[in-house]
Order: sequence, then C-alpha cells, then structure tokens
Amino acid sequence: MLDQSTICAISTSPGSGAIAVIRLSGSEAISIAGKIFRSPNKTKKLEDQPANTLHFGQIISNDEVIDEVVVALFRAPHSFTGEDIVEISCHGSAYIQQKLLEILAENGARLARPGEFTQRAFLNGKMDLSQAEAVADVIASSSAAAHKLALNQMRGGFSKEINELRDQLLHFTAMVELELDFAEEEVEFADRTELRKLAEKLELLLRKLKNSFQLGNVIKNGIPVAIVGETNVGKSTLLNALLNEEKAIVSEIHGTTRDVIEDVVNIHGTAFRFFDTAGIRETVDYIESLGIERTYHKLNEATVVLLVVDTQNPYPVVKGRIDKIRKRITNGQQLIIVANKTDVGKPETINQLKKLELEENEKSVFIVAREKQNLTELIDLMTHAVNTEALNQEDVIVSNARHYEILKNAHAAIERVLTGLDTGITGDFLSQDIRECLHYLGEITGEITTHEVLGHIFKNFCIGK
Amino acid sequence: MLDQSTICAISTSPGSGAIAVIRLSGSEAISIAGKIFRSPNKTKKLEDQPANTLHFGQIISNDEVIDEVVVALFRAPHSFTGEDIVEISCHGSAYIQQKLLEILAENGARLARPGEFTQRAFLNGKMDLSQAEAVADVIASSSAAAHKLALNQMRGGFSKEINELRDQLLHFTAMVELELDFAEEEVEFADRTELRKLAEKLELLLRKLKNSFQLGNVIKNGIPVAIVGETNVGKSTLLNALLNEEKAIVSEIHGTTRDVIEDVVNIHGTAFRFFDTAGIRETVDYIESLGIERTYHKLNEATVVLLVVDTQNPYPVVKGRIDKIRKRITNGQQLIIVANKTDVGKPETINQLKKLELEENEKSVFIVAREKQNLTELIDLMTHAVNTEALNQEDVIVSNARHYEILKNAHAAIERVLTGLDTGITGDFLSQDIRECLHYLGEITGEITTHEVLGHIFKNFCIGK
Repeated sequence: MLDQSTICAISTSPGSGAIAVIRLSGSEAISIAGKIFRSPNKTKKLEDQPANTLHFGQIISNDEVIDEVVVALFRAPHSFTGEDIVEISCHGSAYIQQKLLEILAENGARLARPGEFTQRAFLNGKMDLSQAEAVADVIASSSAAAHKLALNQMRGGFSKEINELRDQLLHFTAMVELELDFAEEEVEFADRTELRKLAEKLELLLRKLKNSFQLGNVIKNGIPVAIVGETNVGKSTLLNALLNEEKAIVSEIHGTTRDVIEDVVNIHGTAFRFFDTAGIRETVDYIESLGIERTYHKLNEATVVLLVVDTQNPYPVVKGRIDKIRKRITNGQQLIIVANKTDVGKPETINQLKKLELEENEKSVFIVAREKQNLTELIDLMTHAVNTEALNQEDVIVSNARHYEILKNAHAAIERVLTGLDTGITGDFLSQDIRECLHYLGEITGEITTHEVLGHIFKNFCIGK
Repeated sequence: MLDQSTICAISTSPGSGAIAVIRLSGSEAISIAGKIFRSPNKTKKLEDQPANTLHFGQIISNDEVIDEVVVALFRAPHSFTGEDIVEISCHGSAYIQQKLLEILAENGARLARPGEFTQRAFLNGKMDLSQAEAVADVIASSSAAAHKLALNQMRGGFSKEINELRDQLLHFTAMVELELDFAEEEVEFADRTELRKLAEKLELLLRKLKNSFQLGNVIKNGIPVAIVGETNVGKSTLLNALLNEEKAIVSEIHGTTRDVIEDVVNIHGTAFRFFDTAGIRETVDYIESLGIERTYHKLNEATVVLLVVDTQNPYPVVKGRIDKIRKRITNGQQLIIVANKTDVGKPETINQLKKLELEENEKSVFIVAREKQNLTELIDLMTHAVNTEALNQEDVIVSNARHYEILKNAHAAIERVLTGLDTGITGDFLSQDIRECLHYLGEITGEITTHEVLGHIFKNFCIGK
C-alpha cells in the first residue's frame, strides 16, 4: 500500500513572500536534494550530514545558480512523515518556487498529491487517522475555539479513549466467539455482567461524542447566523456594522440584497457565519423571489436568527412580522429580535416591543445599526446563544462530519448489543453487533480503512501538507 | 545606528498554507523562543543547542499548547542578518501565525518593519546595499530573465567592480589632495597619465552600466507592449489569447474596453507587460475619450506596439490607420502590424498588406486572434523585439532605478574629471569632481548612505524579509 516514491511540494502559502519552503519526503529525498545543492566550500555532501541540521548553500541546475537557500534535514523515522525529509527554504518568488519544483522533478521527485505528506505520516504509523484529519483542521482553523478543537484532536483527542474501549470490546468478542465453538456445551466465557458494563460505558461515551458534534460543528465552521427581516429595515447595514467592512450591498432600494451573502467573522474568539438574506416580502420579481426562497431555507440552517425590525413602523406591523418568523423558529434555534432605527423610531412601537413577552429561546435588543449603537449588547447575546464554554473543560468534542456519521453507526450498534444482552439473544447475533461496533470504531482511528476512504479524506487537504 | 531589539515577522507568503515560518532576529531571539518552546521530553533548552540545528516541540502560552512546531536555530554571525536567528515552522493557519506573533511580542520581541531583516544584514556587513536591494528584486522577480538579473546582483553583481575602481580612485584623490598641501611647490604626487587611464576605465564602465538600464528595466518589469487599433478589430481577443485567460472584457460593442488594462505575462522566460487600450477613434463619449488619451500616452511608454487591423476593412482604410500610428512611433520602438481576422478578411486587403513596405523597426504578421492562429509567430516577433540575449553573457545589467540615477551622476562627474584633465584644471577642482564621483559610487554600494536613503530603500520590501 505504501508508495515509496519521493514526493515534493511547496508547503508554504501560495504566492510571493520573503521565503517559501519546498518539502521533499521519501527514501530518495536527501540524495535528490544532494544532487542540486552546493555548499559554499563546494565539498559538503548533504548525504553525510546528521539529522536535524541546517545547511546554507546554492541550488544549482545545469551549472546555473538558481537561488541561495537553507536546507533542513530530517531523517527517518524521526520526521513528520516518518520518512527522510528535506525542507528547502528559498526566496519566496513564485518564479523560484516553480523552478525548484521543476528541478526536483527532473532529479527524480514527483509532485505530491494533496495531503500526501500527512497520508504518509498516517501510513507510517506516526499518527492515527483522526489525528491526520485534524492536521487539515488545524491549518484551516480561523478562530481560537476552532483552533483549540483541531489541535486537541491532532494531539490524540478521543482516539486514546476509543482505542482503549475498543481493545476491551475486542477481548469480549473473542470470548463470545469462543463460546460459539463450544455452542453445544452452553458455556459462557464472556462474563455477561462485565460485557454489559463495558457496553454501557461505550454507549455513554459514544452518545456524548455524538451529541458534541452540533457544538463541534459550529465551532469549526462558525455559528450560523441568519439575518432576516423585511426589505429596508437595515439588515445589510447591520451585517456591515458587524463585519466592519463593506461586503454586502447597502442600498435604499427595496430588494437589492438578492443573493444570500455568507461571511465568516471572528468575534471575541468565536466564529460566526452570517447569511445576509433577501428581504422577506411578497414580490413579483422572479429573481428576488428566488432569493426569498433561499432565505427561508437558510433560516432552517441557522443556530441564531436575527430578526431585524424597523421601529419606524407601527407596532402591529412589527408584531405581525415577529409572529410570522416565530412560527418558523424550530427547537434549538435562538431568536434575537433586533429593533433597529430606535433613534428615529415610533416611541409607541419601541415601548410595546420592550414589553413583548419573550420565550426562553428569545431575546430582544434595541439598536441603531447605522450608528453602531448597542452593537456590543447584540454581540453578547449572540456569543451566549451557543455555549462554547464546554471547550474550556477537557471535554472531547467531535467536529468532523465523517466521525459523526461513524459515531452514529457505532452508537446504534452498541445499543443493539445492550438490547441483545437484555433480551438474551444468542452469542452469534451478539458477536455480530459487537463486530459491527468494533468496525466503526476502527474506522475513526484508521485501524480499519479502505483506499477509497483514505483518498476521500486526503483529497480535501492542501498540497504541501 | 544599529537597533539592537529583537524583531519578529511572518516570513512566508501571507494567507493559509500547510506550514508558515515566523522569523526572529536579534540578541534575544533564542532566549525569547526558549521561553515559549517545550521539547517532547520537556528538558531540552533552546539556549544550549548548537547553531544550525532543528528542534521539534510545542509552543506554549499560559500553559496552553498553541501548536506543534519545528524550530531552526542560527547563531551570530553565521546567519542571514548576522544576528542570532530563530525560525519557527508552524502549521500555516492564519490564526496560528497571528497568535505566534502575539506571543512573541508578549515575550519581548517587536514586529519587524518591512525589509528590516535585510537592512540588518546590510548594517551588519553581511551584504552591501546593492546586494540588499537585489533581495527584494529576487523575491519579486516573475520571469527567468528578471530572476537571473536580480540573483546576479544579490550575489555581488557590479559591486565588486565598482568597489575596486572606487578604491583606486580614492588613492588618487589622496594624492591630488596631498598636492594641495604643497600647492606652492607645484609638485605632482598623482600621476596624471595614470589618473586619466583610471578615469577612462571608470567612464567606460559607468557608461556601460548606465546604458544597460533600459534593458535591465524591461527585463525587471516586463517589456511594455501596447495593443492599439480601432474598436472592434479584436484587440481584447488578442490580449486574451496571449494571456490565455479572460482578464479583459471581450465584447462586440464598440468602445467597451474603456480602461487601460495592464497585465504581465511570462512567455518563454521573458516578461511582457501588456496594455490593452481603448479603441482609437473619434468619440463623443467623455469617459471613452479619456481612455483614448491614455492610449496615446501609453503608446509612448511601450517598447513594442502591436497595431491590430481588421482585414475585413478595405485596404485604404487599413493603410490610413497604419500611417496614423506610424507617425507616433518613436525611435527605439518596435511596431508590429497585426493583421487580424484573416479567415474572413478581404483578399485584396490581405494581399496589399503582405506587399506593404516595412521600415527596419516594423514587422507584420497575419493572424486569427479568435482561433489563436499564428500566435506563435507573433510571440516570436515580440520576443525578438528586445534583445535580452545580453543576459546570457556575463554582462552586468543595471535594473534598479536608484542605481541608474546615481550612475548618471557618477558618469557626469567622471566626465568632468576627464575634461578637467584635458584642460589642465587645478588640483582643487579636480579633487572636487573626483570626490563627487566617489560619493556617488559609495551610494550604490552603501559605503556612503543616510538614514533617509536606507528608510526609502527598505520601506518597499515586504515584511518578513
């Protein structure tokens, strides 16, 4: 399964910078680098240098100096991939980076596929699959919370706990299956009480992990926030105030914000994913009505719904709007009623809104979006709408959709094991459910994996990692 | 003059990548890095590690693991800046990069100014000023020729030659000035024949360098190519075909390409800087007429002018167009008449164009831009319009505008020295001209420099270099 060829890629962010790093990994990494490297005294051989050392010199191609570089040497198995690795720090022009890749290819390296370095790290046993997957999340994380989540997972996360329980479960399967060999003698090698204890422990853990996904997902991808309201109540202005930049079109013309604009913004270490939505009103404009359909769709995806109302309108109109949206708020969603334009609003409307009775999952806030007045209060409400404090405990949180799907399956299997124990089903059925659970747990950490699964996981990586 | 504080910056291209490199330089670099670094066995001290070594470990802030990194250690004076340098290779998320800079700042490093690492390399005598300036050019170079030019300069370029002649000239000045002390005795310590030889040598070198600037400039910034012609003859289509991408608006509507679009593209290792220009025709549209004014302006800046004509027009119309542009072609410019749409053109027009008598600086080519037909021939003509082959010889080429200005001044001064020698002016006048020439030469390599000049040079660098 292991591809032995030496691979290379630009590992730093694409584009031009002061320096760039080209990474080579494989059994030929050092000898290939040696062919194009020349030390100042022209005698140093890279192949003879010890691991974890740095070497200044030139990259030479056809007797021409291509660049002056620093070469970092790592030797197997003490490297990221577990193979020999050479990292070439060159000047960061796009030209040099391309040229270096060309020269390396001429000398026997091939371009790495996305995630291939990390895939090799996994295949060489440097990390399990869930850790490898977390590498991509660490790189992609854009908020403190998401970063912490990904780093925890990369450093082991729930792998250890799952692996321990899996080992114990494996032991029981062996016992249960041994019973099958002696089926006629009705012996019980596997202590059913012990097995039940273990299965219960596993069920609890799997349920906890499964349930953590909603939180993990919003931490990783940003808390989805939908901004809804009639046209011209100031939705785009509010979004802009929150984003602190002009990404959405702000306009006095009704229905200008036809497209759902998504924008991720970091507020106090929490990422919010905003949808700015077309004004919800009856319309004959076809394109606009498309936008409105999308609005209702997005509403369902949101964890937090900001309903913006214009306090310049009479209260009954505003109330009608609120009631209409309330009907669409589902369980687990937070509704924040944002009373806008309070500087020019009708006092009657504002007063009535202040007296409005709120459900447990509802809040209200009075702002002037254009003046950024009271935004802090709104942001506080949004930040507390999702409890990200669980992160501060050492709780393990699942943020990977693949893991979530597998955990659901594993949980279903262990529940069947428990039911089976309750109803006293025969060992062969029990064994089948345990095997299934084992299989799923193995898929998370990569004990059990297929080429296809690996390909799917690593294709989403960036090249160079 | 030397700022001793320890500086830090992200040295890789901004944005997110597999890895990023944060660079620290200064006397405290290793101790600051040591404060936030923890090795796997928790006992390794960065301060005790030898130069040019790599260390895997974690970055810790407030007992929290921020990332797993590899730290590279360089010790003064054997580093890029001549100071202690630590390079931290971290995961390339924007979040981690920012966080690491924050932590380094908390621990006593300050953010580096643009080019400050290279400035320190210069101030610490690791390179002269023209070499330091070339570092920025190496990073910015986007074609093989520009890269070679910049790398030559970074590796010493004309510094050595200039410094040698400057030393000799300095010796003569001393002699000439010694004569002044003995003015009443009419002695000549400085052999006038030798001085003339030296001055002539210097004049030749300075003239050669000065004259190389035009070539150096087009190599560095791309050969400026103006695409002109009436509206709707296919200028944008041609530009797109050349760029191989849709950067300009292609449209059948007359006068759509209102703005001068500039695009640099690399063809066979030579960079071309294209201006796509508004169609030159009489117009009442104010915005469009602005565009046309700019077209004529750009025409003057171009080294190569591509005049696109539509062979569907009658020959007299086409010929009128050619004559009009010919009048505007100045000395040193190359005019390439691009006869377009030859697949649907009038045979008479095509035939007459083929018979058109061309000046030495004129070429013609027959293409179908939309079908990319005969583009290779056009590209060949463009590539040969500027003789970049001088690069292949070991000729030194000036590409830096600052150097060019200084070289002009130095050349004028050395010419005055020669005239002075011819007319037998007195030693004090001679000395003054030699001093002036010395001063300018010193400004190129940085022997003579001011804080202001340094500030100006390095402010155009990217941060992190």
